[in-house]
Amino acid sequence: MAQKPSIPKGTRDFSPAEVAKRNYIFSTIKTNFEKFGFQPIETPSFENSETLMGKYGEEGDRLIFKILNSGDYLDNFSDAFINGVINIISNFYINLINESDVNSIDFIEKNKIQIEFLERIYNSKGLNESLNLNKVFDNNLFKIIFETLDEYTGLLFKNLDFYMNHNGKLEKYADLYEEDKKTIFSISSTVYSLWSIKSNSKKFTANISEKALRYDLTVPFARYVVQHQNEIEFPFKRYQIQPVWRADRPQKGRFREFYQCDADVVGSNSLWQEVELVQLYDSVFSQLGLGGVTIKINNRKILSGIAEVIGASDKLIDFTVALDKLDKIGEDGVKKEMLEKGISGTAIEIVQPLFNFTGTINEKIEKLAQLLANSEEGMKGVNELQFICDNVTTLGLQTAFLDLDVTLARGLNYYTGAIFEVAAPKGVAMGSIGGGGRYDDLTGIFGLKNMSGVGISFGLDRIALVMEEVGLFPEAVLATSKALFLNFGDKEALYSMKAIGKLRQKGIKVELYPDKSKIDKQFKHADRRGIPFAVIVGESEIEREEFGFKNLATGEQQKVDFATLVTLLQ
Amino acid sequence: MAQKPSIPKGTRDFSPAEVAKRNYIFSTIKTNFEKFGFQPIETPSFENSETLMGKYGEEGDRLIFKILNSGDYLDNFSDAFINGVINIISNFYINLINESDVNSIDFIEKNKIQIEFLERIYNSKGLNESLNLNKVFDNNLFKIIFETLDEYTGLLFKNLDFYMNHNGKLEKYADLYEEDKKTIFSISSTVYSLWSIKSNSKKFTANISEKALRYDLTVPFARYVVQHQNEIEFPFKRYQIQPVWRADRPQKGRFREFYQCDADVVGSNSLWQEVELVQLYDSVFSQLGLGGVTIKINNRKILSGIAEVIGASDKLIDFTVALDKLDKIGEDGVKKEMLEKGISGTAIEIVQPLFNFTGTINEKIEKLAQLLANSEEGMKGVNELQFICDNVTTLGLQTAFLDLDVTLARGLNYYTGAIFEVAAPKGVAMGSIGGGGRYDDLTGIFGLKNMSGVGISFGLDRIALVMEEVGLFPEAVLATSKALFLNFGDKEALYSMKAIGKLRQKGIKVELYPDKSKIDKQFKHADRRGIPFAVIVGESEIEREEFGFKNLATGEQQKVDFATLVTLLQ
Repeated sequence: MAQKPSIPKGTRDFSPAEVAKRNYIFSTIKTNFEKFGFQPIETPSFENSETLMGKYGEEGDRLIFKILNSGDYLDNFSDAFINGVINIISNFYINLINESDVNSIDFIEKNKIQIEFLERIYNSKGLNESLNLNKVFDNNLFKIIFETLDEYTGLLFKNLDFYMNHNGKLEKYADLYEEDKKTIFSISSTVYSLWSIKSNSKKFTANISEKALRYDLTVPFARYVVQHQNEIEFPFKRYQIQPVWRADRPQKGRFREFYQCDADVVGSNSLWQEVELVQLYDSVFSQLGLGGVTIKINNRKILSGIAEVIGASDKLIDFTVALDKLDKIGEDGVKKEMLEKGISGTAIEIVQPLFNFTGTINEKIEKLAQLLANSEEGMKGVNELQFICDNVTTLGLQTAFLDLDVTLARGLNYYTGAIFEVAAPKGVAMGSIGGGGRYDDLTGIFGLKNMSGVGISFGLDRIALVMEEVGLFPEAVLATSKALFLNFGDKEALYSMKAIGKLRQKGIKVELYPDKSKIDKQFKHADRRGIPFAVIVGESEIEREEFGFKNLATGEQQKVDFATLVTLLQ
Repeated sequence: MAQKPSIPKGTRDFSPAEVAKRNYIFSTIKTNFEKFGFQPIETPSFENSETLMGKYGEEGDRLIFKILNSGDYLDNFSDAFINGVINIISNFYINLINESDVNSIDFIEKNKIQIEFLERIYNSKGLNESLNLNKVFDNNLFKIIFETLDEYTGLLFKNLDFYMNHNGKLEKYADLYEEDKKTIFSISSTVYSLWSIKSNSKKFTANISEKALRYDLTVPFARYVVQHQNEIEFPFKRYQIQPVWRADRPQKGRFREFYQCDADVVGSNSLWQEVELVQLYDSVFSQLGLGGVTIKINNRKILSGIAEVIGASDKLIDFTVALDKLDKIGEDGVKKEMLEKGISGTAIEIVQPLFNFTGTINEKIEKLAQLLANSEEGMKGVNELQFICDNVTTLGLQTAFLDLDVTLARGLNYYTGAIFEVAAPKGVAMGSIGGGGRYDDLTGIFGLKNMSGVGISFGLDRIALVMEEVGLFPEAVLATSKALFLNFGDKEALYSMKAIGKLRQKGIKVELYPDKSKIDKQFKHADRRGIPFAVIVGESEIEREEFGFKNLATGEQQKVDFATLVTLLQ
């Protein structure tokens, strides 16, 4: 039975038209990244698990795709496993041999795990009698064990005798054949699972998986910076456009494999970086034709200041979430929710200015300066914001709007300064199409202190959806051939191929229909492929060294020489 | 303790310079693919395991990276697990309640697994007494079980009473809370592992992993063609440049993650495709400056013909492997090896012409035609080869050589017609830098019959190594900024940023040094980054609306206005 082909949920195939559109966005972003002095790096798709785990919170950790150690079983991992299994069995046998009373409570207690293991295998062989510890050599239990393993796993212990010498002592058990090593992995992992009931499942996963697909580009970038710190010239402006993987529940617009496009600077505290990143957003979206996006900006220190002022830093998220609903549920609704969440009435009174937080950016900053006057941290944030907004305003943006949004609280756990988020142009229903911020200690997790980083990210999939909706992809994005040479037989095809070769050397995209099929079929192929012209070569064309040239849109047809053909297709 | 950062063996980080070089190769290949009418597709990094498994032979299957179902535990897989655990426990309790004699041999035998499971948990709690089946409710074993699971896994059974009603019967156990479901997965998988000793490890793997990283681009392409057959216009010329993953033992030049660059045509038997693919190789390598590669060609049908003629189709590999050593060990050595491998003396005599297989391609084909005159299959191969070689020769190649190599036997299991392999230019020690062939039944494994495909692949990593060795990368490959604007303070930086903004809008790559550091440090930064010019803006430049412009290679310095600056940087 042939399999009905499908792909894992949350993943996508991209057709030529889709790839072309996505590449158009990538290439625009890339051009702008480079214009702003960012340089590309690439990191492996999978990282060591310990590089990723614990960096994204508990929820994030759960969403990391782990890779089975399948390919590793000849290496560290499997050796440990093999040794483990062999040890369990052999130690027990050694104990057994050295013990005078194998039925003593002490002995049984000390070898509980081993006995249990042997019994399990013994019983699974259909021998339901109890394990007679005096008879383990008599009834050749050891042989049964390996036969059983063999049966379960296809494992062939070629030299059983090798492991069991006549003294009953086990020697050289580490000296397994390479092939045995390969196959013993199967049973080893099962045996390991058996014992792993004693440990928790996290430990279990760690032992069968040591690699994981990257979850974002930021942590691999931090790892890269630390690992290559001696080769890197700081401040380091890098960009990275690669896929990431998340085991999220797939939803409309949320995928398990998707591209991230990140630009980060690491090694400088200069707020000019923030200014440039706002300009970079503006530059990319303007060039894509996506005018009118709103670049929302906030600052972690302002949020800390607010938390200080309301006297409840643990309520910060509740506070911003509630405040964000101002447009939807009104001032009273927001206040009601804040009270319900345990924010005091006094606190709400203090932040009253935030309920009427309108005006120009400068007016908003002024309001914040008053509100946070007594918070040192808060005022730092206000000053940073002032610097960024002043300079962005002075330098001007092409098509984007800059706006201050105090409810913007993304990345609260890692951002320490500026926080960015980009909203699609008004009228387009779509979540954020970009975001970023500053993190003062990007590389600290990997041991390199005092490396401030600031970066932004572009949400490719959403940008593509928006561009599709607004109809912003240029016609020319799809790079089909300019002309299809029809095929009337090998002689004609050879004549065509000579012309095709010369055209291609001039960089002109043309193709030969590979088979001598009915002419209708060949025309239909050009049409379905979106190829605008057909070149027709029959006997008479060959004789006169000509080409029939047909415009497939108008139906117009003419006979031309090669030079004219070049002109028509260029 | 901070982690010492590293990446999994067999994987690589790519620095900006490396990315630039690789992208140069990619982009050359891509341009040529499109010039020849191929269109890009992309497929997901991971496929369903059943799409990949069994397609690459036993060795290949072992080298496929499997992905743990970690992300799936709220879906199918985990539901089955949860139900499994709940069933084991609850069925046992139901049995217990309905049984008059819980200590009967019959009862114990029937509930062996459940009792064992309970005992295991019971004992792991430190209660080493035997499980008293009459007292399981009295001593609240059930509670202990869940507390134990809780302890091991962080699982919190919020409503224990919910699962145990006063009748002792378990109802609604499938009605777990969402959060319980999430966490119960941990213990479920361990429990599953426990029972999995009864099944073999392949089954085990299949149950904890349902996805795998793609091993090549051909099988995903076949899957794509079948899945999207109704949207595809055939013949379908697609190219695909994406990474693949293999759990190979890492070696010099062999990686666990590497890019493949494939171009295939599916849906046509026309040999013009083979002709074009030879031209495509020639075109790419010529454009890369890698002249003088040898495109070796053979045909599966010729190999079948030889097998027929020597009367030993099972010895075909041995035969070609031995024949391939002609240069190294001489005619006698080869014959000796053939005899050792069980190829008869008579057979060796018949294929005597292959030991002196020199001359032009046409002369070689002539020799083959004589040798294989009585093999219908062999003669088909000879004719195909003749067509391809004749037309390639007539049309001419730019810099590559075409050669017939009867020892070329790559992909013997799937190629059915032409076989290609590209050897680096003479004098460069490197294995093949490309390969491909025709496979008559590309999509049959996925249920779509009679779809012939033919394709070629470029070995990116080896091509990059060769180009590095021969020194073929153009200087301009690394796209650094044209100029670094030095930073003497915020006022000067703002003046610079105004110029920078205008330069970038003209597509000129320039950057501002972000911090007001010592001037030496800033110059050194430009130098280390390979930025050729520095722009110096101090108070006097601002006053006179000028820019200091310094050529960092020559040290030459001048004061210029903005218009001149543009000219100098364009």
